[in-house]
Amino acid sequence: MDNTALEREDYMDISMEKILDFLDQRKYFDARDELLKYNAADIADILEDINDEAGLRMTVILFRLLPKDISVDVFSYLQAEDQVDLVRGITDKEISFIVHELDFDDKIDILEELPANLVNKILENTPKDERKLINTFLNYPENSAGSLMTPEYISLKPEWTVGDAMKHIKNVGMDAETIYTCYVKDFSRHLIGIVSLSTMVVSDDDTKIVDIMRTEFVSEKVNTDQEEVSDDFKKYGYLALPVVDMENRLVGIITFDDILDVMEDEATEDIERMNGVIDFENKDRGYLDISVWQHAKNRLPWLLILMVAYVFTGRIITSFEGSLSKVIALVAYMPMLMGTGGNTGSQASTLIIRGLATDEVELKDWLKILWKEIRIGALIGVILSAVNFLRVWLLDGNPIPIALTVSCAMIFIVIFAKMLGSMIPIIVKRINLDPALIANPAISSVSDAVALSIYFLMAMIFLGSML
Amino acid sequence: MDNTALEREDYMDISMEKILDFLDQRKYFDARDELLKYNAADIADILEDINDEAGLRMTVILFRLLPKDISVDVFSYLQAEDQVDLVRGITDKEISFIVHELDFDDKIDILEELPANLVNKILENTPKDERKLINTFLNYPENSAGSLMTPEYISLKPEWTVGDAMKHIKNVGMDAETIYTCYVKDFSRHLIGIVSLSTMVVSDDDTKIVDIMRTEFVSEKVNTDQEEVSDDFKKYGYLALPVVDMENRLVGIITFDDILDVMEDEATEDIERMNGVIDFENKDRGYLDISVWQHAKNRLPWLLILMVAYVFTGRIITSFEGSLSKVIALVAYMPMLMGTGGNTGSQASTLIIRGLATDEVELKDWLKILWKEIRIGALIGVILSAVNFLRVWLLDGNPIPIALTVSCAMIFIVIFAKMLGSMIPIIVKRINLDPALIANPAISSVSDAVALSIYFLMAMIFLGSML
Repeated sequence: MDNTALEREDYMDISMEKILDFLDQRKYFDARDELLKYNAADIADILEDINDEAGLRMTVILFRLLPKDISVDVFSYLQAEDQVDLVRGITDKEISFIVHELDFDDKIDILEELPANLVNKILENTPKDERKLINTFLNYPENSAGSLMTPEYISLKPEWTVGDAMKHIKNVGMDAETIYTCYVKDFSRHLIGIVSLSTMVVSDDDTKIVDIMRTEFVSEKVNTDQEEVSDDFKKYGYLALPVVDMENRLVGIITFDDILDVMEDEATEDIERMNGVIDFENKDRGYLDISVWQHAKNRLPWLLILMVAYVFTGRIITSFEGSLSKVIALVAYMPMLMGTGGNTGSQASTLIIRGLATDEVELKDWLKILWKEIRIGALIGVILSAVNFLRVWLLDGNPIPIALTVSCAMIFIVIFAKMLGSMIPIIVKRINLDPALIANPAISSVSDAVALSIYFLMAMIFLGSML
Repeated sequence: MDNTALEREDYMDISMEKILDFLDQRKYFDARDELLKYNAADIADILEDINDEAGLRMTVILFRLLPKDISVDVFSYLQAEDQVDLVRGITDKEISFIVHELDFDDKIDILEELPANLVNKILENTPKDERKLINTFLNYPENSAGSLMTPEYISLKPEWTVGDAMKHIKNVGMDAETIYTCYVKDFSRHLIGIVSLSTMVVSDDDTKIVDIMRTEFVSEKVNTDQEEVSDDFKKYGYLALPVVDMENRLVGIITFDDILDVMEDEATEDIERMNGVIDFENKDRGYLDISVWQHAKNRLPWLLILMVAYVFTGRIITSFEGSLSKVIALVAYMPMLMGTGGNTGSQASTLIIRGLATDEVELKDWLKILWKEIRIGALIGVILSAVNFLRVWLLDGNPIPIALTVSCAMIFIVIFAKMLGSMIPIIVKRINLDPALIANPAISSVSDAVALSIYFLMAMIFLGSML
């Protein structure tokens, strides 16, 4: 376990108790001083806890007592829902101040969350140029590179020397999202090169920027999906990536810290989809902030699609009803065989879906994958089959033909489920759909039907005379 | 879709074809020149494809023709398996050269993968101090902060001026992993402050480092788990975090680019665990590089645990066998009721497990979560129940008491499954186990038994006279 993190969190818990005590006794300034022992990210965490424990009013009081510059930082670290809550508790003037002081990309994020009348009020007090820029940014589609980027980058001229550039950075650096990667544009605002601060620091002052800039660089288009942007960050390990418009003019940059959140959101989306939850809202809201109706809407489609599949499963059973009523003992093993088929199929599909998402496996590997899953299935099938033969025969005391039916069915069900589980994601991806979204319902429906058919087939083979 | 990435990838595909042609015609230098149009990360990608298409020998030839400095970069971007492959094809001298030129953290990674005799040969040609350091680093537990860090950071003295510091960075900067965050140590190597290059760039040359360094900073311990390190990166958005030993002496730094891989690996681990695959090897190898035996070993435990659970399910069915054989129609709806219970339960557990992992929900929210899931379950249950009443009665033509049995069972099963699915992860987390690892088998086993019990109870209520 991590000592540092634990110590830090313990320490924060103690402060939290102190602050709650101070608030109870209305010693607001003592509470604020306790809070100011921490950095902005930690203060934001503590304020969110105080909002839960002592209510919004106390949180607002504390927030308003923070020094102005710190309050802006703290605000930018709060979760979107808490930002909106807080905005309701403070004056329009305070809101305007905070929003104007925020980094441009954070400003866009909060403006997207705020009610429209408040956005208008804030934009009224914004200089015309910036207002225009804000409106452009607000129009980029959600989850696009455009919605992640900031226009606050350092822009250099190719003819400048390193000395000129460093002077420029000294002047405007405080307003930029990063000064570590600088962007060289030509007269028509096309991006022609990239130069890192580290290159400049190790170069002589009279070196020309054009001579040290990298002209082979990776850039993103404004409408590129955030998932692809995050893949590029992973691949290249850059601190920031430039974003260009359709005419290849530089319009903004995306920095790595915004990508960490994207990666988490994308993983969450995949995990939810693989387990039958489709987020139709697509708003990155937390579990508790999503309404009961929305939760139900997100979960119903998959369950309803499977209802159709169960009609077929039901039909298969009904057609075998006569035989089942003669050897009723067979019913007891149906859940196990179907369940094991589903579980073992979803093990395979999980590995393939994730492998496709992380580029570990490719569509062209399908034959290798199929052959591998057949062997894995056979191995697992034989082991489970042996276990079940003993269980059905010795533990449950059934005759050997029933034990043979169950255990032989097991082998074939596991192999088939592994084949289905590994191939369906590949087929879904091949027709350009998201395997995480489609694969599991498809596998569940097919594998249940296959499992039952195999089981009844085995019953006819081993128990033919009794049915 | 992303135009840039597609264009770039298309472009790379064309080059790939050209290179394969050149290799066919033994025009190795033309192939190399085509390759050199790209940056190191892309060259590594292309080489991996060439390894797949044209074999290791061609890859080795191409790799050896790369300029030395580029070949080192390319090597560091290759996947671990391809690195090991490549090492087999080049001379020991070339290996030594590459390994010595690699950044320290990449060096450790490849040394961990190489066969022991080769590691010894490389270490023989390493200066004693570095050899000692390498051995220390090789001993940090896998997935710890120690295994991720590099000792190649910029270290400053508190009494230096910004001018001194910049001169120092100019001299040693090329060997450091990052120069954007510099570390200030006292005489006993304790970390006392952090100063960013951006602060130095906007400060005057004669400012003292001690006056501008931040003394309130976040650090990691060497044995901290990588998941917690990545959480801290997400929370604070820093470029790099310092790592200290048990005596709080600075031993290395972790940079954000190494964390992107960690985040992906951790998400993969969670996804696999949630779907019943436990990676016992814990080696971050790709799907195709894991043997059939290892795959089977990773998947069997969960399936075997559930076998035990199915013994109970089987017993419940057996105890009801007499009644089932009288109303055999009931059997046809068993898979649907159990399956829906499992699916709807795993929807809830997925959201809660992921919410706990991303700190979106907390243990103390359990009552709110339970109440929410009961309402969601009731809503979904009523809808599915109505659908099923009509199906059983009208579509399948069963008598109304059977339709009532199935549809009433559905409501209660969905509500119970949602309660189980949401509460079991919380209980598992409360006793300090990983919810992703334990929750799903636990939910499957309990929810199947509950679903059957509810179903048979409903049958006794609505069909009591017939059983």
